[in-house]
Amino acid sequence: MTQLQSAQTGHITEEMTYVAQHEQISLEILINHIRDGKVVIPHNIHRNAVPFGIGKGLATKINSNIGTSEMRICIDEEIQKLSLSKKYGAHSVMDLSTGGDLNDIRKRMLIETDLILGTVPIYAVASELQKEGKDILSMSADMLFHEIEKQAIQGVDFMTVHAGITQNSLRFHEKSGRLLGIVSRGGSLLKYWMLHHDRENPLYEYYDRLLDICLQHDVTLSLGDGFRPGAISDATDATQISELLVIGELVERARKAGVQVMVEGPGHVPLTDIQANVTLEKRICHEAPFYVLGPLPTDFASGYDHITGAIGGALAASYGADFLCYVTPAEHLCLPDMNDVKLGIIASRIAAHIGDISKGILSARATDDQIAKARREMNWERIFELSVDPEYARERKVTTSESSTDHCSMCGELCAIRTDKKSSK
Amino acid sequence: MTQLQSAQTGHITEEMTYVAQHEQISLEILINHIRDGKVVIPHNIHRNAVPFGIGKGLATKINSNIGTSEMRICIDEEIQKLSLSKKYGAHSVMDLSTGGDLNDIRKRMLIETDLILGTVPIYAVASELQKEGKDILSMSADMLFHEIEKQAIQGVDFMTVHAGITQNSLRFHEKSGRLLGIVSRGGSLLKYWMLHHDRENPLYEYYDRLLDICLQHDVTLSLGDGFRPGAISDATDATQISELLVIGELVERARKAGVQVMVEGPGHVPLTDIQANVTLEKRICHEAPFYVLGPLPTDFASGYDHITGAIGGALAASYGADFLCYVTPAEHLCLPDMNDVKLGIIASRIAAHIGDISKGILSARATDDQIAKARREMNWERIFELSVDPEYARERKVTTSESSTDHCSMCGELCAIRTDKKSSK
Repeated sequence: MTQLQSAQTGHITEEMTYVAQHEQISLEILINHIRDGKVVIPHNIHRNAVPFGIGKGLATKINSNIGTSEMRICIDEEIQKLSLSKKYGAHSVMDLSTGGDLNDIRKRMLIETDLILGTVPIYAVASELQKEGKDILSMSADMLFHEIEKQAIQGVDFMTVHAGITQNSLRFHEKSGRLLGIVSRGGSLLKYWMLHHDRENPLYEYYDRLLDICLQHDVTLSLGDGFRPGAISDATDATQISELLVIGELVERARKAGVQVMVEGPGHVPLTDIQANVTLEKRICHEAPFYVLGPLPTDFASGYDHITGAIGGALAASYGADFLCYVTPAEHLCLPDMNDVKLGIIASRIAAHIGDISKGILSARATDDQIAKARREMNWERIFELSVDPEYARERKVTTSESSTDHCSMCGELCAIRTDKKSSK
Repeated sequence: MTQLQSAQTGHITEEMTYVAQHEQISLEILINHIRDGKVVIPHNIHRNAVPFGIGKGLATKINSNIGTSEMRICIDEEIQKLSLSKKYGAHSVMDLSTGGDLNDIRKRMLIETDLILGTVPIYAVASELQKEGKDILSMSADMLFHEIEKQAIQGVDFMTVHAGITQNSLRFHEKSGRLLGIVSRGGSLLKYWMLHHDRENPLYEYYDRLLDICLQHDVTLSLGDGFRPGAISDATDATQISELLVIGELVERARKAGVQVMVEGPGHVPLTDIQANVTLEKRICHEAPFYVLGPLPTDFASGYDHITGAIGGALAASYGADFLCYVTPAEHLCLPDMNDVKLGIIASRIAAHIGDISKGILSARATDDQIAKARREMNWERIFELSVDPEYARERKVTTSESSTDHCSMCGELCAIRTDKKSSK
């Protein structure tokens, strides 16, 4: 049984109990939310990842994207990124490898980490074809579903499928006048295939076959936004919303089949559109957990898109987004290195934490209040301990002060807190 | 005549003309805004800084804080920070030095940069007293005003004065139950002095004397928020707002006297309070330009507060804040080094740019659209050129690709834009 089926039939799983304890919320409320599809626990039955709940009433979760490209294939590096993801606080990783032996890389990752692991199965199909000197046009529906089934058996916890791109939504796209067209790799491959063969998207056409596979292995579907805007100019347009309407229907079909499902969202979105994007997803997709890619409220910050993503992510989470896909400084430029992975996760955690304060997640606010008290007491060790990256904060303070004095090299003797204490007896 | 007096009497200054051209707005509208106090051009008559307008209808501006502390006195380093501030796009710097010969440091900075320069004169008084083995309690009102006058003659363009702390607002503070009391250095010094001597704040009591000095040299007043919250728990409380009410009156008095004035704002503010803070300042202070310090929507990101500040700053600017004081990764830990200054400015520029897109500043949106087009065309050089830090973006792309190929090491052959072009003829 999937976590969703268990909730529907009143069966309490170990994972539900774990999540309720971890989040300090009532198990009953959690089960209701899972039953209603407002919370998912991605947890393939063939694997035993640390379970995290994603959705209503829970703390915002973080995903890090890792994986090779055909221009850089170094598996050890990717395995190191897995450890970094764990160390710095990601809740899941997506293996987006497109270079090398993808099957081996995936199997190794599934063994090496106890984080939730997600994939985009069409990448493996496209890469295999590429190796054979063919392109995606040679893909058959069977090839795609075999790949999905293989990965489900291997233990992948969630999969991104761009099932919302249909011949109908392609019509909107044709008329859209977008500056940047399609920027989703999966979306662009499917569009190319669909137009060339003049056929419906196989993921849409044979959606029930997809649901069957997910049901057997409890793979959580992540309905990808193949038409996500790649420039703020393209955000929230008819193309994007036409896909969202299809996704809303697919959410309902998945739930009815007992398959856990979440929805992916943009992308590049101006700050003033972020609230509308969250509201629309929540309404049209029946409060399915919302997994946002950033969002990025400007296109001009190549090299610093972890900051852009943190700005959009903090706002999206405050409005109700549940799951933040990190963005690293390497975004739009190159494959992320170790430092990029670290910075991407830290930036997303800051965004998620700010969102959690807005959402009223009690533990988030409690952390800030404990830090404020520690600052008043100049209890530096306590401040470090509670901070997003204790190691780095400690290093900066300690190496720049002559000793671990109460004040720091910023204000020295003129420290406001010290002065204020003199007059507050 | 000050810029404000000029606008009041219909005299068009060189600086107004420059600002109108630079911002591509109508000179007439600009002059009206200056006349009404909604825009300031900090521009001491004894100096010739590049003029920037701050306020209504204009692009959001950035300030970088630099300066020594008694734990780190290296003037050459601070001069280098001045150059970095210029290079990375700050519009003004504040010399917040508290260690070494402050008079010499300030004079050197005024010569070395053509950026707008601001100070907090009470720091110099406190530091001088400290050197003589005394504390701030030995300060007389005359000492403070002499310092202000000296700096005005030296050419300082704007000064932060915490004139809004009064015996009345101290009553609110006493009852506030704040977690972190006062975190403004100027504010804490004045509170200590006022309580000990049982006297009114000299900056408030002799505000007309202050206005006289500013009028003679066209020093722009930056009414500091001595009670700004230092923890999100303390934000938007009666203490903070009681000070804002005083500041609102002081804004009106400055304008009547022909003195340019802006208002400083928090500080640590939860994301859900940011809009209210901007709205309150704009209403109570009669649309005086709003200069925000961050704001920081969480207390837990020591080491990464440039990101926290960019999140708060982007939102504040979107709601109408006019001037962002940068926050560096060193905030709360130590004096910023060169890299901190760079990262602080870049993060603030991203925030300002996102805010400008929200505000409808046409040039901001145009930049993003040009980048989107360049991405479609894979015109990497154009993307770099238009990005917030061309040098760094170029370095990341070029060193990680084998050559300057059209695709990058992230997606390689699976580039969505390439695939999409194949099916979009």
